[in-house]
Amino acid sequence: MFQGLSAFPLTPLDETGINEKEFIPLIERLVSAGVDSVGVLGSTGNYAYLTRTQRERVLQLAVQAAGGVPVMTSISALRTLDVLHLAEDAQKAGASAVLFAPVSYQPLTDEEVYHLYEQVTSNLSVPLCVYDNPNTTHFRFSDELHGRIANLPNVAAIKIPGVPAGAEAAGLRIRNLRGLVPSRVALGISGDPSAAAGIKAGCEVWFSVLGGLLPKTCLKLTRLAQAGREEEEGQISSLLEPLWALFRQYGSLRVASAIAQQLGFISEPALPLPLLPLNSSVNEQLTAVLREVAGLESLQN
Amino acid sequence: MFQGLSAFPLTPLDETGINEKEFIPLIERLVSAGVDSVGVLGSTGNYAYLTRTQRERVLQLAVQAAGGVPVMTSISALRTLDVLHLAEDAQKAGASAVLFAPVSYQPLTDEEVYHLYEQVTSNLSVPLCVYDNPNTTHFRFSDELHGRIANLPNVAAIKIPGVPAGAEAAGLRIRNLRGLVPSRVALGISGDPSAAAGIKAGCEVWFSVLGGLLPKTCLKLTRLAQAGREEEEGQISSLLEPLWALFRQYGSLRVASAIAQQLGFISEPALPLPLLPLNSSVNEQLTAVLREVAGLESLQN
Repeated sequence: MFQGLSAFPLTPLDETGINEKEFIPLIERLVSAGVDSVGVLGSTGNYAYLTRTQRERVLQLAVQAAGGVPVMTSISALRTLDVLHLAEDAQKAGASAVLFAPVSYQPLTDEEVYHLYEQVTSNLSVPLCVYDNPNTTHFRFSDELHGRIANLPNVAAIKIPGVPAGAEAAGLRIRNLRGLVPSRVALGISGDPSAAAGIKAGCEVWFSVLGGLLPKTCLKLTRLAQAGREEEEGQISSLLEPLWALFRQYGSLRVASAIAQQLGFISEPALPLPLLPLNSSVNEQLTAVLREVAGLESLQN
Repeated sequence: MFQGLSAFPLTPLDETGINEKEFIPLIERLVSAGVDSVGVLGSTGNYAYLTRTQRERVLQLAVQAAGGVPVMTSISALRTLDVLHLAEDAQKAGASAVLFAPVSYQPLTDEEVYHLYEQVTSNLSVPLCVYDNPNTTHFRFSDELHGRIANLPNVAAIKIPGVPAGAEAAGLRIRNLRGLVPSRVALGISGDPSAAAGIKAGCEVWFSVLGGLLPKTCLKLTRLAQAGREEEEGQISSLLEPLWALFRQYGSLRVASAIAQQLGFISEPALPLPLLPLNSSVNEQLTAVLREVAGLESLQN
């Protein structure tokens, strides 16, 4: 399942719970657009703010709505005990893979993170994707640690947070990492603004926030970048650049939530308090940007 | 309650639950040593790894064992909804104050943190201590934001993570902050290695990890620093320096847990997985350090 576009949908919610009626069509849109896989309950899906029961329910709904398209879910939690429970739930609910980040409260050492992955992978019967996202987990992987963890059983992919700017630096980063991990382990790029650069540098999969909302646009971009059709890829990337600028400034979750509201996919911002929606002036900027990009989405049938 | 020594005990636990029989004597030792207040379920008390039910139970036990000494508890959680539930539980269980940190998964903006404190304080009938600990929350307060939050109703103290090295820099830091917060709001120092420096710079309270294990030593240090008896304070501080070096290198929680085991207060490390205990060579270093310091504790009757 670790190839092409893996689309990460929002989890529509408010302070009273999950909006299941809005969640199911989000998944159906991804499936009908032909995404390669769906990643529910990633950071974009707000897993960190939900209960075990809510996470189980969201996954069940997603697997059902995905109709055979592989669904991955996050099993991350601060405590190993909770991770193991979440892994059990995920496998029972039919997850094709699990995504697992070393989220931390007390800063973790490399040894602690290695032992954590060792314990979690030895309790799995589905593939695991290592989730490297220092911005939210506050743990920074070295490439050497990635290499050690990638050799554990059941590790099938690594989701890296981005690549350095510039084709040369990006290529070097991916080659270094590739040299340390087994060939069976896919490398995937996250951080939408550097996704095209990541694919061109050798990443096999794009774990995408925008892909959860505008799957056709992101599929097109993925296929062009994979095929090395730089000019056409560059045209789409240029159109998306103002959106990436908003992602960088306000965080992809707040922007994705505002996109979903403006496009009528959700009625309330999918942001649990204390997170606040974008203010009205940023929302207006977004409207202008979306006018261009939404056109791109509907043109790509 | 925000004056002198506020001692933060460990929560004895293993993968099966809380060890209540070991927890109660920890509190009783603090009370009989005469600490000014007890702070349960701080970072040292592993609040972030426990369930709502466990946190409620630990607080109930602490209030009972404290016999009138004020008990503060953390109500921190990622989601506002959960914070409000924890605040309700804390007040019902008899907390004299609550400690509240803006823990984050998605990085929080200043406005989100201000609104969070506004919502939480308006739902309280006990004093609140703002918990500023960027190492675990990953939110960095500006002094300006501290000033705005300190003016909210029910804010009674700020727990800062440390002071810059050097008496002059430390004094300046505290004077700047003091100039921005109302005089009714106490300033407290955390980060044991800079506690004496913080008190000398004008902090009114020491929120102490070591105070949860060696309360007599920490009380003595507090009183000497408050009284400006620099020579005697310096002697104790010098003796403690090797311990602070271990705190800095391995984290105060892992070291506190090892101290408690070596002194026979707990039978299992109070560290939820994925956190791992100190290795044997560091434990041996600690034994040597403790030989000096434990003598200090028993001499101070």
